[in-house]
Amino acid sequence: MTIDELVAAARGGSIRAAGRLLSMVESSRRDELLDTLDGVAVRAVQVIGVTGPPGAGKSTTIAVLVSAYRGRGKRVAVLAVDPSSPYSGGALLGDRIRMAAHVDDPDVLIRSVATRGHLGGLAEGVPAAVTVLAALSYDVVLIETVGVGQSEIEVAAIADPAVVVLNPGAGDAIQAAKAGLLEVADIVVVNKADREGADQTVRDLRAETGVPILKIVAAKNEGIAELVEAVDAHLRADDPARRAARARAQVLSLAQSVLRSHPDLDHLAAEVARGRLDVYFATKSLLRLADPADNP
Amino acid sequence: MTIDELVAAARGGSIRAAGRLLSMVESSRRDELLDTLDGVAVRAVQVIGVTGPPGAGKSTTIAVLVSAYRGRGKRVAVLAVDPSSPYSGGALLGDRIRMAAHVDDPDVLIRSVATRGHLGGLAEGVPAAVTVLAALSYDVVLIETVGVGQSEIEVAAIADPAVVVLNPGAGDAIQAAKAGLLEVADIVVVNKADREGADQTVRDLRAETGVPILKIVAAKNEGIAELVEAVDAHLRADDPARRAARARAQVLSLAQSVLRSHPDLDHLAAEVARGRLDVYFATKSLLRLADPADNP
Repeated sequence: MTIDELVAAARGGSIRAAGRLLSMVESSRRDELLDTLDGVAVRAVQVIGVTGPPGAGKSTTIAVLVSAYRGRGKRVAVLAVDPSSPYSGGALLGDRIRMAAHVDDPDVLIRSVATRGHLGGLAEGVPAAVTVLAALSYDVVLIETVGVGQSEIEVAAIADPAVVVLNPGAGDAIQAAKAGLLEVADIVVVNKADREGADQTVRDLRAETGVPILKIVAAKNEGIAELVEAVDAHLRADDPARRAARARAQVLSLAQSVLRSHPDLDHLAAEVARGRLDVYFATKSLLRLADPADNP
Repeated sequence: MTIDELVAAARGGSIRAAGRLLSMVESSRRDELLDTLDGVAVRAVQVIGVTGPPGAGKSTTIAVLVSAYRGRGKRVAVLAVDPSSPYSGGALLGDRIRMAAHVDDPDVLIRSVATRGHLGGLAEGVPAAVTVLAALSYDVVLIETVGVGQSEIEVAAIADPAVVVLNPGAGDAIQAAKAGLLEVADIVVVNKADREGADQTVRDLRAETGVPILKIVAAKNEGIAELVEAVDAHLRADDPARRAARARAQVLSLAQSVLRSHPDLDHLAAEVARGRLDVYFATKSLLRLADPADNP
């Protein structure tokens, strides 16, 4: 099938065709795909990032958000960006227990996106996957990342708003602050807020960030309407400067992905390590070699 | 004064000349400086990174390490890489209380290195600063960074070993693991080990990392000889693969710094934000524009 045919089939409801298009974003056919999609009528897509430490309840929060947006009649896609994902960048996931309610819903797409290495660089296929999902008439894309290391920066670069999910307890708030999670948060959610200490955690967080802080109990669907409203309010306040800052972070992150996977990098590094090449000269060489004009 | 004259003056003991050379590493004269230093006899310099959460006792640990290396007759430089440094990348610091003992020692140089922005990219001048310090016959360079966000990656890229300083308490160990600090550690130090819980912290850390874990009380100079020995042992075990991995991280980090400060980035990002430019095309444009062959 051509890309046009795949798009037509996917828009007609073929999950298999959608899956093939989404696989293409991480392949050599990505540019061709994006060129084709350029001519497809696209509705505005809302990209919401959900990040936070392991165990905070990100998947549960996403599951209830999916329900909330489905209740509004929106078509919803979930991209799980997971460096440790056992799904080798191809299969549609149907086996996450929390998502079970949505598995048979044709207007919900759940997919795992592979990342290569865990340091630096936006998972390369994510912006293109969002473009594909927009062309397939999804209204909302929820991106789940684990909020450790680099991934919080990645999600902030692509998503708006970035929602950081934490739990009650001084540890989570302090840790989130130290790990830089609060710097990228547009909305902070204290999940499991029926546990002891939730109010204190909100007060602790209040001292660290000026963004909205919401208490929810995702497993009981409590506070979700307020969260959706906070997301809406955030979008109403969007402006060109913020969009440009996100685009800037995306470009830098994708460039880093290109450089990191450049075939000459290892050789240059070995020469630096041997003392034969100055590290600044090696950097210039890498940037010269990575010039796409010289590598059409 | 020419660079040659500055080097001669600095080698003759002029702190002012050394300061001017170190300022040059962040200026447009860096390449010229490195070319000149290429002809200067250089002794091997040992670069030790010290990182960890705020309050762990990094500065105190560095102060006692300075004393230990001075006791061995080594010339020691301290580079404090601090994104929040109030010192605008020029002045030699003499006002850190912990370092007071060393301020009048002509064989100890203490300097703050400015970083531009806090996300991604090795503080650009640091590798060149290390080259300058080697040319000025410093034997040991201690690099202090705050172990939050990106700086732990930076210090691991340039330093060997990277020493992570933590405190007793379950929180510190868990947090260090989650923040990715333990991934970059070559040696872990539990400072303030005379406090309750130090042994438990060591056991907790043992489950997370295979690198040496030492207990010290920096403020009482306890355990420092063992730390210096651990650093020596680490260096004896160095190998080409590890050096190449460090060089690779340095090259990527410097490349990111170049891209991040490229004059066309903001324009490209604005075009992406306006929907006029695809983010992948913008990334290619940035890499094309950043090719140093086109910008001699």
